Amino acid sequence: MFMAKAYSAVSATSPLASAQIPRRDPTPRDVRIEILYCGICHSDLHAVRDEWRNVMPTVYPIVPGHEIVGRVARVGSAVPQFKPGDLVGVGCLVDSDHSCPNCRDGLEQLCPNQTLTFNSPDKHKTAPVTYGGYSESIVVDEHFVLHVPPHLDLAGVAPLLCAGITTYSPMRRWGDIQGKKIGVVGLGGLGHMGVKFARAFGAQVVVFTTSPGKKADALRLGADAVVLSTNPEEMRQHAGSFDFILDTIAADHDINAFINMLGRDGNITLVGAPEKPLAVSAFALLFGRRSLSGSIIGGLTETQEMLDFCGTHNITADVEVIPIQEVNAAYERLAKSDVKYRFAIDMASIKSA
Amino acid sequence: MFMAKAYSAVSATSPLASAQIPRRDPTPRDVRIEILYCGICHSDLHAVRDEWRNVMPTVYPIVPGHEIVGRVARVGSAVPQFKPGDLVGVGCLVDSDHSCPNCRDGLEQLCPNQTLTFNSPDKHKTAPVTYGGYSESIVVDEHFVLHVPPHLDLAGVAPLLCAGITTYSPMRRWGDIQGKKIGVVGLGGLGHMGVKFARAFGAQVVVFTTSPGKKADALRLGADAVVLSTNPEEMRQHAGSFDFILDTIAADHDINAFINMLGRDGNITLVGAPEKPLAVSAFALLFGRRSLSGSIIGGLTETQEMLDFCGTHNITADVEVIPIQEVNAAYERLAKSDVKYRFAIDMASIKSA
Repeated sequence: MFMAKAYSAVSATSPLASAQIPRRDPTPRDVRIEILYCGICHSDLHAVRDEWRNVMPTVYPIVPGHEIVGRVARVGSAVPQFKPGDLVGVGCLVDSDHSCPNCRDGLEQLCPNQTLTFNSPDKHKTAPVTYGGYSESIVVDEHFVLHVPPHLDLAGVAPLLCAGITTYSPMRRWGDIQGKKIGVVGLGGLGHMGVKFARAFGAQVVVFTTSPGKKADALRLGADAVVLSTNPEEMRQHAGSFDFILDTIAADHDINAFINMLGRDGNITLVGAPEKPLAVSAFALLFGRRSLSGSIIGGLTETQEMLDFCGTHNITADVEVIPIQEVNAAYERLAKSDVKYRFAIDMASIKSA
Repeated sequence: MFMAKAYSAVSATSPLASAQIPRRDPTPRDVRIEILYCGICHSDLHAVRDEWRNVMPTVYPIVPGHEIVGRVARVGSAVPQFKPGDLVGVGCLVDSDHSCPNCRDGLEQLCPNQTLTFNSPDKHKTAPVTYGGYSESIVVDEHFVLHVPPHLDLAGVAPLLCAGITTYSPMRRWGDIQGKKIGVVGLGGLGHMGVKFARAFGAQVVVFTTSPGKKADALRLGADAVVLSTNPEEMRQHAGSFDFILDTIAADHDINAFINMLGRDGNITLVGAPEKPLAVSAFALLFGRRSLSGSIIGGLTETQEMLDFCGTHNITADVEVIPIQEVNAAYERLAKSDVKYRFAIDMASIKSA
């Protein structure tokens, strides 16, 4: 076991602050990673403030962060596929049971015995729960470590590990979207990645937003059109015309307005999880044989595929890079959706923390 | 034009009563059918009582009925595929625009210019609106007339034209359900057909019901198991285990309880249309990548396929045959779900009406 610098919160109302946390010595299957960048996901904020206490109560102290990019420092004896110096990524998961039907099918994100990157019981007993990426280093089972294309901007790679795979996976699974009309609801951390992927897949991309100020930026990111979802006339012009819509809104919203944008056999997939149930009109689904789905991150194989795709197409997230000392201010801004489109912490800053 | 005996209601609070209605003389594309049986669908009752006034207000007098089985009496000069004496069926549609993308794809049920069998504007101007199957005869464009396998019980065939295709279509579309675990929610007119089809497709069929009294009957109809959906312990035993669920409930109900019955990538398809929006948990969809769909009857090609399938597998609805004079009493019982599982009107009775 060794100690590492990290930023942690000791209660739901405490700020994140510098701390020392234990990390295990690498087992034969482990990779020790020196962290270069860690993205700030909205989940981090929810967990730090214990806002998901009904589903997943937070154990304090918490070290959040599951959009990790770093460099391999050491590998265990049974890790042939990584070597010191490799650029690697770690996402939302650091372990699973490797034996359930979902794991056998490469869908570790659906394993009932998965270990999340932070706030999950720590199988190795290094600490009561796992500690995430707001730290100078992390030790992870090699199955959950991903190769990062070295030519990409590394700060912009970090969010791919959660926001990237969350949006890539449902679009990929839906089918070949080349030439199809694809909607992206919400232009935040997830939505802006959805636009980039849909564009790279060759789709006609339309962004739905409630913010007139985001129109120009949506077009810059690759959207072919932007619809102000609060404008009934703009909405009417697109009614019944979409093949697939990616809904990234985590707040309560009128889902039927977007279901009605779908054409025949169209699908809308939720990747945000509003706390309150969504009021879904059965009529909106029946007429047009439409469907509403949910999707959650992706498996490790697909996450590697996504990173490789980003390498080929030169895709990264738009990030605002901050030193770790500014993380609490960044949380305040994130709570107001005041970021374009993801914060990435430059972990070199933790050396002086 | 000729006059035909029918049963009609003159207002939302009037009983159905004997009347004379106009029918057009067959055009070259038309088939004149002497009606033998007409099923009673819950839609008939909704329309007669104007319960869908917000969506589709009823024009009075109304002649309901869209589960029609009869014998061809005359055909127009451009109708090569039917001849007098043929046994035929007519379902929910009697016309469409034949030119929209849905019609071109054989999905007339989604045509924006479709003509419903009753209470739709009558293109032929024989009457203000179309009159349905509670009548001794009907005249229908040949494209909307279906061949009925002659060896089947004809009273039991009538409900196939609506309840049958409504349940057959989504199961067929979902994929090969042989060997899969399929749920059917609700054991009424639709549900009992869902069980028969799922069984014939080779699935493992589980019925969800709130009525302990329906357990034995569900097994008789072909279910492998019956779950009392009000019993949390019975529900828990099946959680996360279904590939596909057909939800036939038209009343408000807890949809998340059934979404949580689905396994990975499982789908629940609504064929009933509750008036109030359904409260759908995004979490229930995300964890397991599940989906919720809607489906509405089926196209003409698929309806013929369904009738042929019923011919091969000897499938008909379980019906209680009544004379037309008992239709008002039957409505009272239908409103209380007191029928196993569909009323079929023996239209010979109308001769003495």
